Amino acid sequence: MAARGHLLTLALLASSLGACASSVGVGARIYVVQRESESLAVYDAVAGEILPSSIRKLGNMRHATMVFSKDLRWGYLATRNGLLSRINLATGKPAGAVQTSENSIGIAISQDGRYVAVAEYTPGGVTIVDAVSLKILKQIPAVTQVEGKEVRSRTTGLVDTAGNRFVFSLMDGSEIWILDASREDFPVESRFKTAAPNPFDATLTPEGRYYLAGHFESDRISLLDLWHPELGIREVSIHDPRLDFDRAAPIKMPHMEAWAISGDDVYVPLVGEKRLAVLDRRTWVFQRSVPVRGNPVYVTMSPTQRELWVTFSGSEDDRFIEVIDTETSKVTRTIEAGKKIYHLVFSPRGDEVYVSANQDNRFLVFDASSKRLKREFHVESPSGIFGPWRAYQIGF
Amino acid sequence: MAARGHLLTLALLASSLGACASSVGVGARIYVVQRESESLAVYDAVAGEILPSSIRKLGNMRHATMVFSKDLRWGYLATRNGLLSRINLATGKPAGAVQTSENSIGIAISQDGRYVAVAEYTPGGVTIVDAVSLKILKQIPAVTQVEGKEVRSRTTGLVDTAGNRFVFSLMDGSEIWILDASREDFPVESRFKTAAPNPFDATLTPEGRYYLAGHFESDRISLLDLWHPELGIREVSIHDPRLDFDRAAPIKMPHMEAWAISGDDVYVPLVGEKRLAVLDRRTWVFQRSVPVRGNPVYVTMSPTQRELWVTFSGSEDDRFIEVIDTETSKVTRTIEAGKKIYHLVFSPRGDEVYVSANQDNRFLVFDASSKRLKREFHVESPSGIFGPWRAYQIGF
Repeated sequence: MAARGHLLTLALLASSLGACASSVGVGARIYVVQRESESLAVYDAVAGEILPSSIRKLGNMRHATMVFSKDLRWGYLATRNGLLSRINLATGKPAGAVQTSENSIGIAISQDGRYVAVAEYTPGGVTIVDAVSLKILKQIPAVTQVEGKEVRSRTTGLVDTAGNRFVFSLMDGSEIWILDASREDFPVESRFKTAAPNPFDATLTPEGRYYLAGHFESDRISLLDLWHPELGIREVSIHDPRLDFDRAAPIKMPHMEAWAISGDDVYVPLVGEKRLAVLDRRTWVFQRSVPVRGNPVYVTMSPTQRELWVTFSGSEDDRFIEVIDTETSKVTRTIEAGKKIYHLVFSPRGDEVYVSANQDNRFLVFDASSKRLKREFHVESPSGIFGPWRAYQIGF
Repeated sequence: MAARGHLLTLALLASSLGACASSVGVGARIYVVQRESESLAVYDAVAGEILPSSIRKLGNMRHATMVFSKDLRWGYLATRNGLLSRINLATGKPAGAVQTSENSIGIAISQDGRYVAVAEYTPGGVTIVDAVSLKILKQIPAVTQVEGKEVRSRTTGLVDTAGNRFVFSLMDGSEIWILDASREDFPVESRFKTAAPNPFDATLTPEGRYYLAGHFESDRISLLDLWHPELGIREVSIHDPRLDFDRAAPIKMPHMEAWAISGDDVYVPLVGEKRLAVLDRRTWVFQRSVPVRGNPVYVTMSPTQRELWVTFSGSEDDRFIEVIDTETSKVTRTIEAGKKIYHLVFSPRGDEVYVSANQDNRFLVFDASSKRLKREFHVESPSGIFGPWRAYQIGF
């Protein structure tokens, strides 16, 4: 018995040392959504390899998004079947889950790190969860009046910002709400009618000041200055008065995932038009269009602000990345990267670019300076890419 | 014997679990230089406590500065007796050291994370160290001609930037050098004469584009656009033509540690004058002065860009922090924080402010919204404060 006990202890010791060893590189581990297999692949950017084990059984990963605790102990993932999962970043193992709804679309973590908020399509609202206990603290139904009728709306465009606030949009209710998570009852402190109906997504500028919601089939954007919510919603246009583009897709609207800002220029990808719109950072007035090869999806700014990388939708263009020089607004390089480029992310200091080639089942690592493909890996149906540095940024 | 072995194994197991447990919160651990005791205190921002053990025997900590590896395994610290120490962030223990010179003043880590560079006063130059093996790969003596004579210069203002470059200034040689760490021989690829003699420190804008070196007893600044080094050095002035301030200190010059940028405004603290200079971010032309209560030392911008916190030198003012609203450039709050405020740092999402009150031997944690003192701790002679999020930023 003593000998067996000893062996058991040794086994425990070995496994605990293993877990410990695996915890050291937590800062350079990048999580890649494997869309069709309910899992995350993990890329270690220092080792330059995909870890042998994926993180599995996480739920429906279509449009799954991830945030991180500020101590980098935990990752939080919201999935389309309404499951909020927590990942132990040191061990790469699931560490608890809670069902917040039937269908979640977005996630954010409060500025102080105490609360995780999840935006929900069904039944429609936002759920506040304790980041440590994973207990549901409050559910806020997105109920409002539309043409005299009570509507429970899908919510979208959920972000965290200063003052421990969350901001989100009501897709069916056509409102933007600010929720105060610095108070224990999590009140909705203000509500605004949007500039056009049906906001479908939103973005926040990096310092957390401007919340911008895009609308279905509209070239208008609702702008809310969170330093001055008392001024209400302002309308911003992405319409280019000098051009009359043919639409390549039935719906014209901006993609809101993240807008690229360099100097005074804000680059906006337009769904269904072969251009980016450039707005003035200070006035939000339309400046000019930048023609690109296809219908843009992501415009991703390098942390150096010297160039941005553009991806495209549609089978003719979705294997290409165009690199645009921010000084000239011209395409300086075209990279044929792989089939269906879904997402790309720069390393936080801009030396590498991580790319999901969904239809090729490949995860690609580019050298940002030379544009050379440094590494590639088999990853099943890769989609969204999330780095732990998001723990330190406002507005996710 | 079997029982003793078992106990030993259990002890090992316990200690390994202990080490493992201590590794989980690596993202929220903040390192505080204890200037007089050759050590770092460690504050855990999630637990809200100073860890029981300091990291000791690190060398002369006057002006010690710290950078982090991108996987957050390692911190690197350069000290005034020329010792480069590595810290294991998971265990909080020293993990190797190398003597690079007799007197080091600054440290930076290359964009790709492979090289640590140290700037040295004595004998004068920069040393490149392998970040993993801690082997010295190259020593670059800062030798140049001054009035026809060969001079070996002190170096200062060392930063990393895009393209795996390091940039630094020659204090006695009055030059700025760019070193290419993307090539194995680490060549100095360009050298520039500064706009005035004797650069004493420098700063880099957050996207890594503009390198600005300040000069002793001068209101001129040398600006190098790293996107266009071919344009050479440009001179920027912090002189306010509308004002003729009395000097409170014998030397007039800017403090270069970090300049605060919000919108189009760059705030510069002026040593020996009771004002900040505001420059235009796009043109670098002097715009206006912002009067403050004393001689400013640090101007630290909130990540929200909505306010900046100013500290002061001199026994009459060094216990105060002034908070300036970036929309009005007016002081909106004065905080009497403690004796000899040496350094302050915002949390990366702007909810807290960490402050060293050197003469009080206190480390302070403020709530950034309410300006309320949340926590305070005894720390011996606290000075510089370094958070692991520096791993993800350009220019340290």
